[in-house]
Amino acid sequence: MSSLLPKAVRIVEVGARDGLQNEAAVETADKITLINALAAAGIKDIEAGAFVSPKWVPQMADSSEVISALNLPEVNLSALTPNLKGAEAADAVGIKEFAIFTAASEAFCQKNINCSIEQSLARFSEVMAFAKANNIRVRGYVSCVLGCPYEGDVDPHTVLAVAAKLLKMGCYEISLGDTIGIGTPAKVIELLTLLLKHIDKSKLAVHFHDTYGQALTNIYAALNLGIATVDSAVAGLGGCPYAKGASGNVATEDVVYLLQGLGIEHGIDLQRLAEAGWQITSALNKQPASKVSAALHAQ
Amino acid sequence: MSSLLPKAVRIVEVGARDGLQNEAAVETADKITLINALAAAGIKDIEAGAFVSPKWVPQMADSSEVISALNLPEVNLSALTPNLKGAEAADAVGIKEFAIFTAASEAFCQKNINCSIEQSLARFSEVMAFAKANNIRVRGYVSCVLGCPYEGDVDPHTVLAVAAKLLKMGCYEISLGDTIGIGTPAKVIELLTLLLKHIDKSKLAVHFHDTYGQALTNIYAALNLGIATVDSAVAGLGGCPYAKGASGNVATEDVVYLLQGLGIEHGIDLQRLAEAGWQITSALNKQPASKVSAALHAQ
Repeated sequence: MSSLLPKAVRIVEVGARDGLQNEAAVETADKITLINALAAAGIKDIEAGAFVSPKWVPQMADSSEVISALNLPEVNLSALTPNLKGAEAADAVGIKEFAIFTAASEAFCQKNINCSIEQSLARFSEVMAFAKANNIRVRGYVSCVLGCPYEGDVDPHTVLAVAAKLLKMGCYEISLGDTIGIGTPAKVIELLTLLLKHIDKSKLAVHFHDTYGQALTNIYAALNLGIATVDSAVAGLGGCPYAKGASGNVATEDVVYLLQGLGIEHGIDLQRLAEAGWQITSALNKQPASKVSAALHAQ
Repeated sequence: MSSLLPKAVRIVEVGARDGLQNEAAVETADKITLINALAAAGIKDIEAGAFVSPKWVPQMADSSEVISALNLPEVNLSALTPNLKGAEAADAVGIKEFAIFTAASEAFCQKNINCSIEQSLARFSEVMAFAKANNIRVRGYVSCVLGCPYEGDVDPHTVLAVAAKLLKMGCYEISLGDTIGIGTPAKVIELLTLLLKHIDKSKLAVHFHDTYGQALTNIYAALNLGIATVDSAVAGLGGCPYAKGASGNVATEDVVYLLQGLGIEHGIDLQRLAEAGWQITSALNKQPASKVSAALHAQ
């Protein structure tokens, strides 16, 4: 199998935001403990919160408080900022990376952010201008890149068009989300083969959910195409407690184990990472959704 | 990524043996229901029991009874037969495929079957002769092919030597077991690249446990090298209930989902397969260790 496996992979840890946003609420102190533990384990990119309406996402209402309590100059802390108000609030606590979020599916965009894809992009213009003026970089999430719960198949050309627009607007990187975890390597390869013809691999990240147990395999397929940035969540956080059978993000522990086995640098201490997962899942009163974590815990 | 992905894959369902052997005991009737349900889902190769001492493996003590109760002429039913006594008992209930079991690690062989690898092979001579005389085919399992709990790394050349001896003795196929689920694709590729220089791919199967969540990714790596026979267990059966954190075989549901996504033929009805898993895990009073199963259950 020919391969473009990268020498090093950058993990973007999304457990404290994309993960905890889809779990039962935890105390502010538990979030601070989690982020500090992730940083101590060696993670350099941590999505630390979301500046969104607490009416819609009550789990993120304390993001200012969480981020203000951190003192991690060596870590790139990012936060979801869907609008100017959120961007200003994130900037006020020193966030140097914003994240904006749209979809490659019109139906998903309508149901989740009540507008068309085009409108969602237009809405970000204020955030982008604010970011540029304040020397803050912006990451663009595209969800449903491998399939949509409403539309089914998603055309890779639609993903390309959305990704290209986000880059043109000034995003430094696009995180490609398999939001419903429906993809397999065939779709990953089809999508990335198209995207990589137009976008440099250094500007693409994969963000795969593990609903059908395929996330790690899909990540492996992406690594083989040279992708070197992977989003993941410690303990596989994000399995919504209210949706039976829902699985969260791919577990960072399992990704790190894979990278170790492949001889790819990642800079993360697996044991300390697993311990961070045990702490937060204990606060959530659940088991980590990571087999590596379970295996290490049994040792 | 260049690939030798096969057009079709043969699933060898090991849940009723390798799976249930490592679970709490279930009723004979539940085993019969399971195997019939697996066959009804379209599985053509089912490991149905083990003819071993009930002193060591009480969960398999009713294998004769289970297999006698089946009427599945279209299914290849196999059974573990470590010695002549077991082989005769399996033959008495009409088994047409035996399975024998050794390891690629001396330490593991000593701890698990109380002899050297060489001695384990010598012990099978009676079984092989009996099988030949009665027109029964024999499958050879080699465990610890990607690592050993006692020795650590296992030399692929040792695996090759053991596999070659089993083939020479008359086995039609070698099932390569990552018994402790420790491997990643790098080791899979290293091992198979060596083996495939000496053994035709049609004679090799992969049998991966999911202890570290890597099994499906490892299977994908093997498929890319042309391997077309995969062992798996419905609902990921085999997570020993007495060992905290232990994970069982890779779940057949997750493998089938992967194959479907890759456009590889498998002949299995995923919904009926998942239902077979729900039945047996209900009897075991546990949840299926399959994310595909959980996702289907939530629908």
